[in-house]
Amino acid sequence: MKPTLYHCRNARSFRPLWALEELGIDYDLVVLPFPPRVHYKPYMDINPLGTIPFFTDGKAKMTESTGICHYLAETHGPTDLAVRPDEAGYGEYLNWMYFSDATLTFPQTLVLRYEMLEHKSRRQPQVADDYRMWFSGRLRVVDQKLEHSRFMVADRFTMADIAIGYGLLLASVLPPLEPCLTETCKEYLGRMKDRPAFKRAQERQKQALVVEVEGDSPI
Amino acid sequence: MKPTLYHCRNARSFRPLWALEELGIDYDLVVLPFPPRVHYKPYMDINPLGTIPFFTDGKAKMTESTGICHYLAETHGPTDLAVRPDEAGYGEYLNWMYFSDATLTFPQTLVLRYEMLEHKSRRQPQVADDYRMWFSGRLRVVDQKLEHSRFMVADRFTMADIAIGYGLLLASVLPPLEPCLTETCKEYLGRMKDRPAFKRAQERQKQALVVEVEGDSPI
Repeated sequence: MKPTLYHCRNARSFRPLWALEELGIDYDLVVLPFPPRVHYKPYMDINPLGTIPFFTDGKAKMTESTGICHYLAETHGPTDLAVRPDEAGYGEYLNWMYFSDATLTFPQTLVLRYEMLEHKSRRQPQVADDYRMWFSGRLRVVDQKLEHSRFMVADRFTMADIAIGYGLLLASVLPPLEPCLTETCKEYLGRMKDRPAFKRAQERQKQALVVEVEGDSPI
Repeated sequence: MKPTLYHCRNARSFRPLWALEELGIDYDLVVLPFPPRVHYKPYMDINPLGTIPFFTDGKAKMTESTGICHYLAETHGPTDLAVRPDEAGYGEYLNWMYFSDATLTFPQTLVLRYEMLEHKSRRQPQVADDYRMWFSGRLRVVDQKLEHSRFMVADRFTMADIAIGYGLLLASVLPPLEPCLTETCKEYLGRMKDRPAFKRAQERQKQALVVEVEGDSPI
């Protein structure tokens, strides 16, 4: 049975989608309308959390976008997309991996939620501002790294570039967050988007939704 | 040079502190008043993000609490505290590790911030409610796992128990979140707190602060 990824277009499940393409793994993709718990009720039987992504590979079942990238590099390798424990950059690699979702993407979802997705009566401009500032502050260490390096770690493309690169991609399409991106970040993101595997992932996610609804993408 | 952990009492840096004790590593601990960026300005030169934890081991520098636990198991082992890629539970292990901070602790910090830490004029009861519900929903998958198992994965104590166990510990001392904990979660947390290494970590964090201030602990 092939690995299977449940995905919403441009949601953080884009991280494992891009990773699957970088690794050249044969996989099944299920593209769901956003949010799936509203538009595709059977999804709650597949992933009771209702979150995206959901990923299966044999008996393994996973829900964490960067965690799936980490898993793919370790179990479908060996590959230079992982940094090994005996390499000098291993601590930095792990740090970017964990940082990408816990410290970078979560504040983004708060801005998205309280400034764009929630009904107007439930919007919270103060909270959106608080976490825009948070995001901007956290992004500074990414920017500093990229001023001296073409990649996040180990002087080569790794899963850390997928993990962080997706955070920048999301910011680039969210009007409240786009101004946080420096020129250095934008140039890096441009290089990431030029990668053939990134382009294949973008093409692949255009496949038909499981059920068609209007305005399905969160971004 | 020994590994060095910068820590605030009971903050999420407790994860690597507990992990260091489980592994029996010789380390230096620096205990800072909370929040360090306010009470100990030199910290900004050590960790420009101003966040806790900060960890150094030789040239490695890390800021992500679960990421440091992951690093310790891979570089100071071999140890059964890590699940290996060739074990059946590897995907589940990684998933709990990434889930612990991105999905579990972040919503906790929102409740803490907007219900307890912020000045009264900036409190946001709706946001605290939104993320209490979020936390409670996400905790359900932890609870379901623990109904059939004494540990989070692989039928043994691993770093995933430190990562998730800390999330439950934090909830247990936050009045708005404590009611989210089921009896199953409380029993598991009780077993975690009985571990000798957990107790040593609790004792160790009582050492003198770098600078003494009143009411230093976030929780």
